[in-house]
Amino acid sequence: MGLHEEMVGIGSCALDASRELVLCSTRKKNTILLEMADALDERRVDIAEANRLDVEAAKAAGLSPAIMDRLALTPTRIDGMISGLREVAALMDPVGETISRWIRPNGLEIIKQRVPIGVIGIIYESRPNVTVDTAALCLKTSNAVILRGGKESVHSNAILADTLIEAGRRKGMPEHAIQLIRTADREAVRELVQLEGYVDLVIPRGGEALIRAVTENARVPVIKHYKGICHTYVDESADVAMAVAIAINAKCQRPGVCNAMETLLVHEAIAPVFLPIFAKRAIDCGVILRGDAASREVIPAMQVATEEDWSTEYLDLRLSVRVVGSVREAVAHINKYGSRHSDAIVSESEAAQKIFTQEVDSATVYVNASTRFTDGGEFGMGAEIGISTDKLHARGPMGLEELTTYKYVIQGKGQVR
Amino acid sequence: MGLHEEMVGIGSCALDASRELVLCSTRKKNTILLEMADALDERRVDIAEANRLDVEAAKAAGLSPAIMDRLALTPTRIDGMISGLREVAALMDPVGETISRWIRPNGLEIIKQRVPIGVIGIIYESRPNVTVDTAALCLKTSNAVILRGGKESVHSNAILADTLIEAGRRKGMPEHAIQLIRTADREAVRELVQLEGYVDLVIPRGGEALIRAVTENARVPVIKHYKGICHTYVDESADVAMAVAIAINAKCQRPGVCNAMETLLVHEAIAPVFLPIFAKRAIDCGVILRGDAASREVIPAMQVATEEDWSTEYLDLRLSVRVVGSVREAVAHINKYGSRHSDAIVSESEAAQKIFTQEVDSATVYVNASTRFTDGGEFGMGAEIGISTDKLHARGPMGLEELTTYKYVIQGKGQVR
Repeated sequence: MGLHEEMVGIGSCALDASRELVLCSTRKKNTILLEMADALDERRVDIAEANRLDVEAAKAAGLSPAIMDRLALTPTRIDGMISGLREVAALMDPVGETISRWIRPNGLEIIKQRVPIGVIGIIYESRPNVTVDTAALCLKTSNAVILRGGKESVHSNAILADTLIEAGRRKGMPEHAIQLIRTADREAVRELVQLEGYVDLVIPRGGEALIRAVTENARVPVIKHYKGICHTYVDESADVAMAVAIAINAKCQRPGVCNAMETLLVHEAIAPVFLPIFAKRAIDCGVILRGDAASREVIPAMQVATEEDWSTEYLDLRLSVRVVGSVREAVAHINKYGSRHSDAIVSESEAAQKIFTQEVDSATVYVNASTRFTDGGEFGMGAEIGISTDKLHARGPMGLEELTTYKYVIQGKGQVR
Repeated sequence: MGLHEEMVGIGSCALDASRELVLCSTRKKNTILLEMADALDERRVDIAEANRLDVEAAKAAGLSPAIMDRLALTPTRIDGMISGLREVAALMDPVGETISRWIRPNGLEIIKQRVPIGVIGIIYESRPNVTVDTAALCLKTSNAVILRGGKESVHSNAILADTLIEAGRRKGMPEHAIQLIRTADREAVRELVQLEGYVDLVIPRGGEALIRAVTENARVPVIKHYKGICHTYVDESADVAMAVAIAINAKCQRPGVCNAMETLLVHEAIAPVFLPIFAKRAIDCGVILRGDAASREVIPAMQVATEEDWSTEYLDLRLSVRVVGSVREAVAHINKYGSRHSDAIVSESEAAQKIFTQEVDSATVYVNASTRFTDGGEFGMGAEIGISTDKLHARGPMGLEELTTYKYVIQGKGQVR
């Protein structure tokens, strides 16, 4: 059997499973999720052993420390997966909810009802816990899921998926509700994203190269969880102490994540006051600063920022700094170089706040708060499958509700047109 | 300048316009729409003359009567475009609406706010009134639009677009809020659907070949307004008179549209009673019937239905008929051969209704009503840009609300993480 036939087989099994999942009660789905949590707990030793194979192979292949870190399943991370399953079980099931309901003059009752999307493909890189997190979120929303993990984590993903599938089977989960693509053939991803009629949505989770490859080949819808080039704009009216606290938090609290700040924009009127205080704190935190000419006039110690810096996601203790003449200039910079993720204004002026929130075209726009809050947990969603930088279907943190769509159920009494 | 550069130019201008459109008040947008209506009214003679060129060219090229009909701008159709503009002006503006709002324990106020999608590309075939309808809907929702009509209607589309653009300019519409791709080069469509970073959404409106070509080439999101293979299932518990009325209406009232019935499924227990009455009425209406073996046992006059019939959108007074053993067999047939558009059950049994509405995976599912109601106007949306057969972002009739997305605006008081 060729790869194409194999992938069509996986798609077809997922489609069948998705139709059975529509019939699963919330209680049954929760029972399955809790059984999965117990099963992971019981198989800790085997999971650690499988993960050790991946980690050793990665070490032998000379992969970067960052990848090694994402790959490793420490006891704490295994705990995290187990508690994640239990948390998802405890969340509200959005499937079946009535979104709206109205009656037409001819008596037709129209009910807009929340339903699963159907079959979801998840393509991810080195972090094996994505296997468990995404399978749990898809199951809770009655979606069948096809998982494709990175080749570095092949042993870890296999044992995690097997453990979930076996636990699910014990509690009556539809066969093929969760499938893992096990072939090493890299063409499998191209096949997956072209499974029209079987796969309803693909979510790539990983670096820019992965997302680009998926988008270019896809014939099914893709929601991109893209890079975060997040900005903080310090307006002329800003409270300086608040601006310093927010900017330092956005850059330093966890620089390696997508909602950390990469570029600081400062109004020229406040730059001479704000920048010296901020720069001292930032440098104390270990941040390397790169500035445009105007900001380097205030802080000559900064390196020179190039055009490339404005569109670079450092994911590191690095920051580009630019002085702007107005809030509109800040907005234009963000809309040009940003990634539509999270951007903040620090300002005491309602007029400037309004311009910023209305005109910045990003999923989340903050007034007087750190961009670091863009997160399903911080938003109160309980769990997240990622943060969409797309504009269709879902924007920003995606939780359970964003893994659903709707249908119209229309009740009549024999009406004809 | 090559085609690629030309298309990037159009995309870039549209993006600029979309950012100005965000700032347009509802009042201003409505003033522009009313000015456009007046302008079309004043230029009726020129519009008819331009349309005559297209119609004559189509006649000379020997195009089908169906295309000729869709192409012609009769005085009634011009009236329709004018009243359409006025109706869109009168509709509620969804942009800026607060979808939901909550406050987190840390005091952050999260506002989920409705915003325009940005830049929308519309690719359509012969009907020139799509130029006006879609431009109006996009303008009302503050989206910039790039129009690409069929080559048969090139003169009609040009004068309609020019009239709208000139009228808009008189009332301060952002330059390039509405653009028409005027090159005859067919590659322009491929370029348009690959304008990542400029175009946020493409909606192809036309036949299956067009939609397939767009989907295969697209790198930007596409919402498909696909064919309608709609079913009516007559359950064993159906009220026979109601079932006949609904099935006749769904097939005969306007057979050439996407929400008309193409396949009738009949429970075996009711077939001997229902089919003779229905078949007589249908044949009186001029319907050609094709049935499976079981239905031909009841009505031997029917032609033989082949496997191909089940997935054919006739758009004509033709109907395929199949006898099924249960509601689940009907559901399986619909999910296998249907196009996720509109499907109806006629049944007095709540159990059968529930199985049908829960398990049929279509945008609109009817109980005891005709599928012909799937329409923005019939749903009370006022206007529609089409009917989505996709599952993401929007399903079923798409009105103004479906041409928007959302952003999170978050108000803080200096919160950090």
